[in-house]
Amino acid sequence: MAIITLTTDYGLKDPYVGAVKGAIFKQLPNVNVVDISHFITPFHIAEAAYIIQNSYITFPEGTIHIIGVDAEHTPENRHVAVLLNGHYFICADNGVLCLIMNKLRPEKMVEINIHDRIESNFTMLDAFVQTACHIARGGTLEVIGKPVTYLQRIAGIFPQVSDQHLYIHGQVIYIDNYGNSVTNITREIFEKIGKGRAFELSARSERYKKIHERYSDIVNFDVNEEHRDVDGKGLCIFNSAGYIEIATYKSNPLTVGSASSLFGLRIDTPVIINFERI
Amino acid sequence: MAIITLTTDYGLKDPYVGAVKGAIFKQLPNVNVVDISHFITPFHIAEAAYIIQNSYITFPEGTIHIIGVDAEHTPENRHVAVLLNGHYFICADNGVLCLIMNKLRPEKMVEINIHDRIESNFTMLDAFVQTACHIARGGTLEVIGKPVTYLQRIAGIFPQVSDQHLYIHGQVIYIDNYGNSVTNITREIFEKIGKGRAFELSARSERYKKIHERYSDIVNFDVNEEHRDVDGKGLCIFNSAGYIEIATYKSNPLTVGSASSLFGLRIDTPVIINFERI
Amino acid sequence: MAIITLTTDYGLKDPYVGAVKGAIFKQLPNVNVVDISHFITPFHIAEAAYIIQNSYITFPEGTIHIIGVDAEHTPENRHVAVLLNGHYFICADNGVLCLIMNKLRPEKMVEINIHDRIESNFTMLDAFVQTACHIARGGTLEVIGKPVTYLQRIAGIFPQVSDQHLYIHGQVIYIDNYGNSVTNITREIFEKIGKGRAFELSARSERYKKIHERYSDIVNFDVNEEHRDVDGKGLCIFNSAGYIEIATYKSNPLTVGSASSLFGLRIDTPVIINFERI
Repeated sequence: MAIITLTTDYGLKDPYVGAVKGAIFKQLPNVNVVDISHFITPFHIAEAAYIIQNSYITFPEGTIHIIGVDAEHTPENRHVAVLLNGHYFICADNGVLCLIMNKLRPEKMVEINIHDRIESNFTMLDAFVQTACHIARGGTLEVIGKPVTYLQRIAGIFPQVSDQHLYIHGQVIYIDNYGNSVTNITREIFEKIGKGRAFELSARSERYKKIHERYSDIVNFDVNEEHRDVDGKGLCIFNSAGYIEIATYKSNPLTVGSASSLFGLRIDTPVIINFERI
Repeated sequence: MAIITLTTDYGLKDPYVGAVKGAIFKQLPNVNVVDISHFITPFHIAEAAYIIQNSYITFPEGTIHIIGVDAEHTPENRHVAVLLNGHYFICADNGVLCLIMNKLRPEKMVEINIHDRIESNFTMLDAFVQTACHIARGGTLEVIGKPVTYLQRIAGIFPQVSDQHLYIHGQVIYIDNYGNSVTNITREIFEKIGKGRAFELSARSERYKKIHERYSDIVNFDVNEEHRDVDGKGLCIFNSAGYIEIATYKSNPLTVGSASSLFGLRIDTPVIINFERI
Repeated sequence: MAIITLTTDYGLKDPYVGAVKGAIFKQLPNVNVVDISHFITPFHIAEAAYIIQNSYITFPEGTIHIIGVDAEHTPENRHVAVLLNGHYFICADNGVLCLIMNKLRPEKMVEINIHDRIESNFTMLDAFVQTACHIARGGTLEVIGKPVTYLQRIAGIFPQVSDQHLYIHGQVIYIDNYGNSVTNITREIFEKIGKGRAFELSARSERYKKIHERYSDIVNFDVNEEHRDVDGKGLCIFNSAGYIEIATYKSNPLTVGSASSLFGLRIDTPVIINFERI
């Protein structure tokens, strides 16, 4: 059974997500429609890219991912279907794919050109639903679009590395459900630049000299629980998506507070890692 | 595989939605349960009707729609199952169906009378789940209810048209996830009354002389992006459900603001269309 | 088709829920993944237990329930898989199961010990997903864990009963989507202690002498609707989960208010039932 995932900024109250699913099942009764997220900040392409990048990869190859963010069809916002890393992505060519693919090269790219052939008064995502069902049925991209050779690029927010590799200058790109502040500095770049040197990561008044593998690394299990004093304590961690994240232990933005609220680490807050000079 | 959709005011935190799904799968392992919305404002029948009306139609015929809003079984709140426009609706007879069906006539209507036969300590929606599974198995409405000939009507909020068709007096009925203000004036009534005449739509201090087909219609693609100045600009549009909607281009209620927040267009705000006198 | 349910504190915006589902479907294309709730308050074990306890039971026997709350694997937070009441639970041994099982005895309990065998850079819930898919394929618990004989107990918040059964001293444990305040006093304990005696339930300034079976019990259907005056009126009810709940008729926390907001009945507010002395 083919899998179609949905990532949109529609929210879950409005009729739109239900309508999209209905349209898919009307065409294709045996398909597995899986929500990735419908709470993307409206029109926020970078956020959509972050969320898809960190979830699509767990799905089996051949999964079809619809991205319904900033997707109105205009002369400048082509609709595309792209085979990338074994997965199909259907979205507007608004830069979101360029952020998702990062250094990967798409295997196939077409501009969807079936808009004139669709009869429907359900305009939202019509072409995406048609395209997804076509692929799910085993159809090829060439049938629903014409090959293209480039995708629109937008300035991704990538960390800057100094010439002599003395520092990485990144920033907070996402606040998660726990209020943890995710930076755009990946484990890969950190290890490549740092090469095991000592460092200090600073973000506003926070300072860290270690990046942990798990939240509980800061807990001393040899000490009785009442003497540990770690709840709400700040730490740095490589999160499950491979990014450096500034977190608090067992945070809760609504009660005890979180890294974002307690330390003032909002979207775009600079995060700097200074490495020792050798 | 039969499809059962759910529309409720339960929210997605409480155990209720999970419990309903479990009860369905216990009876019928091979059924496709699809969420339409669980974020209906509690007991808000008109909102439920708006959301179902604009989503059910994309599903295949024969789909079974459970509406769990204001559904407690009382002497005045009968439980009904209705075949309408090829779809089954299971809900309380509290007026919601009257709003959904608008001018359509139900093909079949029964009052569900299986409540005494249900043994269960899971009372929420028991009769609805039983009825839905019965229909999904191919059972007829007559087996689980007795035919009825009328449904409760509630005053829908329909736009008023002046005697000489000089104006339509409607109002805002829904604020969507983008903060766009949806009116109760449909394309159908607008075209029928307007007959192509010039008009001015007014809502508080906003004035519009055109209703667009898509949000990007207000963008001048011949001009460089930095000179377009459309973000946050107001416009009128026929939305994907066929209603006139007052929107802002690329709105976001949480950041740049939206039609609702910037122009003060809340639920019930009057929206008037004055047509030119010929 | 096996059913795997998910209950987490991940929220529905982040990539995590999508990633977990992708990982399940990659292993097992034909499984029914059902969300119970992803809006557990972060790290709130008692809330997770309340929500699972009141939803898992409607699912068919053999259903596999993953609980992703406070689940990081540490020396003190073992991962366990437990067969209880015909259902499988996969979670951290942080006390949540002890609350769920209440007086039931698990049929089987193992400590999951496959962590070393998992190759993945998707760490979140890896062991849970592996275990769930193993069980869904018909595998036994012994293959993925070693039997254990106890589970960690945490102090549940159970109501106190006075020596001579003159009162039950409970408290509010949950506020639901309608703003109703759910207490930890069950119908079972109320009937066992009360034995049909008259009583007064008090919670802050509220006083009730009757516990209803349904919200509409307080409506006098012999009187015309405009003279009923029940909207927003307080009442006590046994909710669908069997707990005493203090509610208002047709409440809405965002508009007319709710039991929680109007009467100040928050989490932990004491609720006392005094029975008449015979």
